[in-house]
Amino acid sequence: MEFNIAFIGFGIVGQGLAEILLEQENELKENHNFEYKVVAISDTMKGSVYDENGLDIKKLLDLVNSTGKIEEYPSGIKGWDSLKTITDTNSNIILELAWTDLKTGEPAITHVKTALKNKKHVVMTNKGPIALMVRKLLDIAKENGVEMRYEGTVLSGTPALNLGLYNLAGAGITKAKGIVNGTTNYILTEMEKGLGYDEALEQAKELGYAEQDPTADVEGYDALGKIVILANTVMGANLSKDEPPCEGITKITSEDIKKAKEEGYRWKLIAGAEIKEDGSVKAYVKPEKIPLDHPLASIMGPINALTYTTKYLGDVTIVGPGAGKLPTGYSVLTDILDINRLVK
Amino acid sequence: MEFNIAFIGFGIVGQGLAEILLEQENELKENHNFEYKVVAISDTMKGSVYDENGLDIKKLLDLVNSTGKIEEYPSGIKGWDSLKTITDTNSNIILELAWTDLKTGEPAITHVKTALKNKKHVVMTNKGPIALMVRKLLDIAKENGVEMRYEGTVLSGTPALNLGLYNLAGAGITKAKGIVNGTTNYILTEMEKGLGYDEALEQAKELGYAEQDPTADVEGYDALGKIVILANTVMGANLSKDEPPCEGITKITSEDIKKAKEEGYRWKLIAGAEIKEDGSVKAYVKPEKIPLDHPLASIMGPINALTYTTKYLGDVTIVGPGAGKLPTGYSVLTDILDINRLVK
Repeated sequence: MEFNIAFIGFGIVGQGLAEILLEQENELKENHNFEYKVVAISDTMKGSVYDENGLDIKKLLDLVNSTGKIEEYPSGIKGWDSLKTITDTNSNIILELAWTDLKTGEPAITHVKTALKNKKHVVMTNKGPIALMVRKLLDIAKENGVEMRYEGTVLSGTPALNLGLYNLAGAGITKAKGIVNGTTNYILTEMEKGLGYDEALEQAKELGYAEQDPTADVEGYDALGKIVILANTVMGANLSKDEPPCEGITKITSEDIKKAKEEGYRWKLIAGAEIKEDGSVKAYVKPEKIPLDHPLASIMGPINALTYTTKYLGDVTIVGPGAGKLPTGYSVLTDILDINRLVK
Repeated sequence: MEFNIAFIGFGIVGQGLAEILLEQENELKENHNFEYKVVAISDTMKGSVYDENGLDIKKLLDLVNSTGKIEEYPSGIKGWDSLKTITDTNSNIILELAWTDLKTGEPAITHVKTALKNKKHVVMTNKGPIALMVRKLLDIAKENGVEMRYEGTVLSGTPALNLGLYNLAGAGITKAKGIVNGTTNYILTEMEKGLGYDEALEQAKELGYAEQDPTADVEGYDALGKIVILANTVMGANLSKDEPPCEGITKITSEDIKKAKEEGYRWKLIAGAEIKEDGSVKAYVKPEKIPLDHPLASIMGPINALTYTTKYLGDVTIVGPGAGKLPTGYSVLTDILDINRLVK
């Protein structure tokens, strides 16, 4: 099929994806049999534009870079809000990349439900809808014969979820454990180099690894959201996002880090999930001392890693970036290309 | 679709897969919508049996374990050779798991071609046909509208090829580099612990990691075959398997290993491939001193690892087993399940 893409939200992730689509156009067509048009963009800050015959991505990116707005695009229909863009355009795949309230999952949940009920595929990078109701949304997708994907919600474009869901299908996954928050891993790495916690956090903010309010990262809530998504998606759990025990890195001192190193260990903020003998799934986030010769101990800076323990392969670990404009933008592309393989 | 499976070859890998199919039957049906019958097995040593209504896997495994033969299976047609099994049974997927001459790729190449031309999907773990003529075979598969898969040829069931081909599609892979031979990595690990080369090799033989004639492993030819398959499959190269420079581990002494460690390095047998600026792909196998804080340095024993360098994700590394009955048996299942997703 030819994909008619609508972007709901055109911030960092959307622009990252647009850059990749532009650069890889020939490669995607020739090597992946992927043909597409971007037919609509709707962004609450930057405006909206729709052209059923396709928009020029280069022009859109230039406009955003120069004016911050896309309403000045030289053709097409302007001013449609996200819901009208989802329902009334000739789009057949909706990219939900807008800002979302993590508590309610809105407006993303409404966007996603509307798109699926209109029989449009959905790819998203927002953790909200997935952490809150992934099973219900997957059911709606199934009822409507379309796909819903969200690789970017865990480890950005590093294929953590799709690895568990597809590549390791039937391998008997019993456990997943990893470093799924780059900010805290960066802070711990810098503390090992000699910085205090506050200095390391400040540096993480300067480099864009930490938000101005770093609570979600340093208290472990971001990691918790990801491990809940993973447990619910890959391990068939049905955990609510506030259920598992969660402890961040704020109590770890430079002294702790030094002492662990001397004993042959390294502190890491670990998110884990395990299928228990009774079939229930337990998840947690907490700092753990990892032996220096364990693969997770060598993961430094903002890099993420996840180890699946399986019945037939033993441990399989994936290592890669956990955030960033291009890695998260790419996560959307990998999902779209997988849908393209399925529906071609 | 319902898969009617024919095994060509029922040695270690085939039996490993059969065990997994047996154990995971419900899981595969319920969670992966995968329905199948094993309709035929043809093995030059163990005999052949065909029943269009399906064979009992448990009985087949019991027979092999007790008598080494499957001809005593209580029903079905006996004595068909591999080609007749491929062409004349109601199978729609052929598993090519027989012994193959690595120089000529036969009889596997003939098996695979015959299956594809009869419009049957093929999954294999034999490196021969893939190292010698992967592009030609993929063309035949395409002409006949069927799939041909071979994840098990590199890193057994650890998804090295499928990661590059599918999960990282469009990510702009420029380089691949890794530890793709478990025997040599085991020997180097044991030498670091204090064994001499000969002792370490002897121990690898005792544990079944090394063949009685270890030449293919220790001289790097096994690793070379794998990196050529990877370069030709994932990076669009067209290398012959004798083209790239290849050096094994036989010249590395205990003294070299000790000295490197003192300098913060570890010797690893590295297989690499890189797309050069002119679009050509260069591959090589050689021992390299890896800095101890590099992810590949922490890969010890018979474990394998592969790092893809990409334009949009930077480095993505996968770590897992590189050989073994169940890991290689599982590689066949992961390929079948992916075909099941595509053709359902």
